[in-house]
Amino acid sequence: MTLQEAKQQAREKMMPQCRMCKECDGVACRGEVPGMGGKGTGASFIRNVEALKNITLHLKTIHDVKDADLSFTLFGKTLSMPVMPAPVTGVNINMGNKMTEKDYIRGVVKGSEKVGILPMVGDSAFKSFLEDNLSVLQEENMAGIPFIKPWNQEELFARIDLAMASNPVALGVDIDSAGLDTLKIHGHRVDPKSLEELKAIKSYLTVPFIVKGIMTVEEAMLAVEAGADAIVVSNHGGRVLDHARATISVLPDIAKAVNGRVPVLADGGIRSGVDVFKFLALGADAVLIGRPFAQYAIGGGEEAVELYAKKIAQELKGAMLLTGIKDLQTLKEQGRSALHFEV
Amino acid sequence: MTLQEAKQQAREKMMPQCRMCKECDGVACRGEVPGMGGKGTGASFIRNVEALKNITLHLKTIHDVKDADLSFTLFGKTLSMPVMPAPVTGVNINMGNKMTEKDYIRGVVKGSEKVGILPMVGDSAFKSFLEDNLSVLQEENMAGIPFIKPWNQEELFARIDLAMASNPVALGVDIDSAGLDTLKIHGHRVDPKSLEELKAIKSYLTVPFIVKGIMTVEEAMLAVEAGADAIVVSNHGGRVLDHARATISVLPDIAKAVNGRVPVLADGGIRSGVDVFKFLALGADAVLIGRPFAQYAIGGGEEAVELYAKKIAQELKGAMLLTGIKDLQTLKEQGRSALHFEV
Amino acid sequence: MTLQEAKQQAREKMMPQCRMCKECDGVACRGEVPGMGGKGTGASFIRNVEALKNITLHLKTIHDVKDADLSFTLFGKTLSMPVMPAPVTGVNINMGNKMTEKDYIRGVVKGSEKVGILPMVGDSAFKSFLEDNLSVLQEENMAGIPFIKPWNQEELFARIDLAMASNPVALGVDIDSAGLDTLKIHGHRVDPKSLEELKAIKSYLTVPFIVKGIMTVEEAMLAVEAGADAIVVSNHGGRVLDHARATISVLPDIAKAVNGRVPVLADGGIRSGVDVFKFLALGADAVLIGRPFAQYAIGGGEEAVELYAKKIAQELKGAMLLTGIKDLQTLKEQGRSALHFEV
Amino acid sequence: MTLQEAKQQAREKMMPQCRMCKECDGVACRGEVPGMGGKGTGASFIRNVEALKNITLHLKTIHDVKDADLSFTLFGKTLSMPVMPAPVTGVNINMGNKMTEKDYIRGVVKGSEKVGILPMVGDSAFKSFLEDNLSVLQEENMAGIPFIKPWNQEELFARIDLAMASNPVALGVDIDSAGLDTLKIHGHRVDPKSLEELKAIKSYLTVPFIVKGIMTVEEAMLAVEAGADAIVVSNHGGRVLDHARATISVLPDIAKAVNGRVPVLADGGIRSGVDVFKFLALGADAVLIGRPFAQYAIGGGEEAVELYAKKIAQELKGAMLLTGIKDLQTLKEQGRSALHFEV
Repeated sequence: MTLQEAKQQAREKMMPQCRMCKECDGVACRGEVPGMGGKGTGASFIRNVEALKNITLHLKTIHDVKDADLSFTLFGKTLSMPVMPAPVTGVNINMGNKMTEKDYIRGVVKGSEKVGILPMVGDSAFKSFLEDNLSVLQEENMAGIPFIKPWNQEELFARIDLAMASNPVALGVDIDSAGLDTLKIHGHRVDPKSLEELKAIKSYLTVPFIVKGIMTVEEAMLAVEAGADAIVVSNHGGRVLDHARATISVLPDIAKAVNGRVPVLADGGIRSGVDVFKFLALGADAVLIGRPFAQYAIGGGEEAVELYAKKIAQELKGAMLLTGIKDLQTLKEQGRSALHFEV
Repeated sequence: MTLQEAKQQAREKMMPQCRMCKECDGVACRGEVPGMGGKGTGASFIRNVEALKNITLHLKTIHDVKDADLSFTLFGKTLSMPVMPAPVTGVNINMGNKMTEKDYIRGVVKGSEKVGILPMVGDSAFKSFLEDNLSVLQEENMAGIPFIKPWNQEELFARIDLAMASNPVALGVDIDSAGLDTLKIHGHRVDPKSLEELKAIKSYLTVPFIVKGIMTVEEAMLAVEAGADAIVVSNHGGRVLDHARATISVLPDIAKAVNGRVPVLADGGIRSGVDVFKFLALGADAVLIGRPFAQYAIGGGEEAVELYAKKIAQELKGAMLLTGIKDLQTLKEQGRSALHFEV
Repeated sequence: MTLQEAKQQAREKMMPQCRMCKECDGVACRGEVPGMGGKGTGASFIRNVEALKNITLHLKTIHDVKDADLSFTLFGKTLSMPVMPAPVTGVNINMGNKMTEKDYIRGVVKGSEKVGILPMVGDSAFKSFLEDNLSVLQEENMAGIPFIKPWNQEELFARIDLAMASNPVALGVDIDSAGLDTLKIHGHRVDPKSLEELKAIKSYLTVPFIVKGIMTVEEAMLAVEAGADAIVVSNHGGRVLDHARATISVLPDIAKAVNGRVPVLADGGIRSGVDVFKFLALGADAVLIGRPFAQYAIGGGEEAVELYAKKIAQELKGAMLLTGIKDLQTLKEQGRSALHFEV
Repeated sequence: MTLQEAKQQAREKMMPQCRMCKECDGVACRGEVPGMGGKGTGASFIRNVEALKNITLHLKTIHDVKDADLSFTLFGKTLSMPVMPAPVTGVNINMGNKMTEKDYIRGVVKGSEKVGILPMVGDSAFKSFLEDNLSVLQEENMAGIPFIKPWNQEELFARIDLAMASNPVALGVDIDSAGLDTLKIHGHRVDPKSLEELKAIKSYLTVPFIVKGIMTVEEAMLAVEAGADAIVVSNHGGRVLDHARATISVLPDIAKAVNGRVPVLADGGIRSGVDVFKFLALGADAVLIGRPFAQYAIGGGEEAVELYAKKIAQELKGAMLLTGIKDLQTLKEQGRSALHFEV
């Protein structure tokens, strides 16, 4: 199987919910929630992608770097690269409904395991999706990070209990889901969380706590104060608030403010290893990739997930090689000077 | 009925005068006056929409706000939200001529009443349009705000007399209509108004006086000096002067200069509750929405007007929730810091 | 006849050399010289139009101006408005070859006379075009301004002699034609002119001398030094040098430097009266309009030229009315503050 | 044969690998490597072209320059203009595979000879391509500059030996090829070069040494330190690193830093003589043109290469004439003030 073949199969399985465009930029699917698009005019999804394009790299070829080291450690686990599939659920409502949720997530999880990366799995209005996701982790005895929606505390704690049975590496709450209308469609309610509520969640947890949906310095500081073990800079792929800022635009200030106290993860419009390079150069310790991993899991399962992850690794290595950066620590320290913001 | 169905019916009833585009942005219909487009190249309509797009929101999810209060008071009337249908007339010349003016305006007025907002109704070269609009308000015993064109003072006063029979909440003059060529087509003449003429209108009126068509600080001050009880920042949807500035671009300075002496209303390219959020955050006390209310009234009457208004309310609430703003007063005070102007 | 009908007929007569696009912006015809397009990538033509779009007007409706006076005097002649058809020739090579050069120019000249404006007529590699143009002026006993190409001085003086027989109001040399490849196609040579050569032309002339093709302050000063009685800021409609600057971009500095010593005329992408307003507000005393007058002359002759000129006048008046500017002198003095340069 | 005919034949021979678009801008073919496109999203290729478009020229027509001298000397050879075909290889994998590599390169080489310019020929994963290229130079007894890929030093020196048999004017290494995935497809490895490795290459060579792929001031200085006799500012036509900066954007600083110590050559998106003018005005001593020469060699062989080169010369002369610049030395000294960077 090639990625091109997986892409073609994904198109057949997901049309019209996903057209598998030449460039996955949020334009054709704008406003399609449920589906793969961004909310409203789709501006937040589109802007994530567009903002990335305005950043360019200083190509360098006279130096001593002949290879680049991508190895990365998170919560004590050594991973092959600082890239993770983001938690994406809902084959039936968002991704064409041509396969079961469990088969889909199995592709994500097993493909991730093959290349040595850590998959995230998600929650949904249908509790069964979370259960499916967790059962795959258990059945396959795989490492993963479940994310729970910001339900009221009682429901949230109940779902945390459920998730703990999968022996997760960490647990996350994607508080940005507070704006996810598809959850409300099914009668559930999700809300922003106060500092006190986040502290209560942290107290309840026995594994590292990841807070996802941070878009301001102020909230990054609140998450750290609440005891988060990592944060994710994310606008939920543009699916919760139209006209939100692009994640790459807010990342540098947030990373600077966090200043290494906890790992800063980020997502938003990442399609290639060069995009990963930009996020890492601007302060992210690792990135999440959402739609592409989901699309390839639908189109080619475990094998396509593996192929896509390897492509990302090759592109990231290539970008490091052609900017003379030998490893992630150097990228963190010198990456900013490898970039140029075009007007 | 869904909004999607109403949109489809509107398309059938209005083609080719309105194509009911995926995004109502003034591009496809540019230059189509009469019709739904902007004047000349359509640049003023298009710019209203485009300028809004360059403003983004700071998404926030760590805070205590779990719900947002939209209630709003104007001229002593409590309304469900600070959103009003703008005065739009002329089914036969602008909107496909597939229904009567009275049936159209009945949808706007009754839909507005159902959701607790205050509709504006308009004037035209054909005096019968104004009469139709007013008679609907009377027959249905509904609250509304008629707008009269800037005719010579004698004709203007005669039409004010006519309008008073509908027991209006307030009366407006949309002086920006001075550039409306469709009025001249029918042999009438409308003109800019001097400060003295505005003062004379104010003296004549027994209800609050709204001056619509303010695009500079200088004129906002003149309107206040003339005794206006509210102003509307508007370029008449781009239908009176090609290449006018966008309303969202001039609003902040005008609101600052008016400084609360009278309510500042505004319109121009507003399609969603997030757009409303931006206008309120930049100084508007309330907004008018023109084409969308008209389109849904054509496509689905009262029911579609109600559905669209509810969608706007939900989106506005969502935007406030995801920026941590609990009510309109807070939005007025802190809204500016919730926004970012993208380059 | 309506302008819409004339447009349709023009399309039929000129296709494929001119598509009579909804907006005449140089995109569809880029690179088509001969034809109606701009040279090379068409960037200079396109940029003329695009640069104009970034300038907006401050709409004003509270003031005493109820009408605007467009009357204008040039070389002692009183004209109805400061707008002139630019010299455009070559029906057979540029405009579809469906009518004679004389019939074409007769429409331009007679339509201009009807509305009280002054037409310019042009020169070409085929001397017969100039002769045709001049003979129409003579036959119809019309006032006009012939423009001669920058041939070597001997040929130039011979053509000036020829032109004087038509009793011209003034004579111009469009030195920007030095880059016109279509002239070279027919074996002729045109060149830039030195200061001395321009002085010699001035000495030779017995009517006012207009130098066309000024795009820098330095050359405006040289033209004045050479004795020019008027200059035309022009990049020859983008037909002589790809990637030239837009005329509206260089006009303000040139007008400021000339400082009223001679009239500053200008052209480049003007399609509407609002465009004329922008040029006058930024320092032009009058403007030339090229392609549109030519297109309407082809499509509807004298009548269409008249209709188009009246449309321009109405739009210019409308723009002055809606910015509160009562006459051209006021526009000259206060126009700059009526404009905004969008980013 | 006309260029238009050659273009049509090139389209027939190269489809779908090259569509011979109206404007060769990297959009239609983005991501097509192998093929004619840029790597990944194609952003580097596209940006090369786009960045050039934002630079405009100050058109001048009042001066003494009636003709422009393009003659240029490199490594002691006098050439008709400072323009060279860039090294492009791989008819079978990149250009439609409808002719032999030798026939293709023969068109480039012989066409170049006819107009007095110096062709560059390339290297590839298939050593036979290099051999073909070199044998054409030998058979035709033509001057040329072979470029070798940055293989490991042993292989590189072996290929230099091979190339020396063609009696080259100079030899280059395009170190930017370190990112060329098509080389890796065939099992070879290319790498960035250290300062020491470049010094070793210089020591090994008996002809001038050209280092191609310089995109930063720092590396320009390293190349000079290594003994390079010329550098080429290039991002390899956008084929080695997605989202690299545009060459025209980095050229001015590099030229300033090199300060005449060695000739600065450059390529990237050059399609016309006006583009050449911009590169020379911003500090390049000469330019390389890649895709267009290759496309015309495919479409019309020697004759089309000659026609295209003459078109470039005519356009460059035209741009110099219409900016009042009489020769290349003047362009180098005053060119910057002939340009404007549009926002």
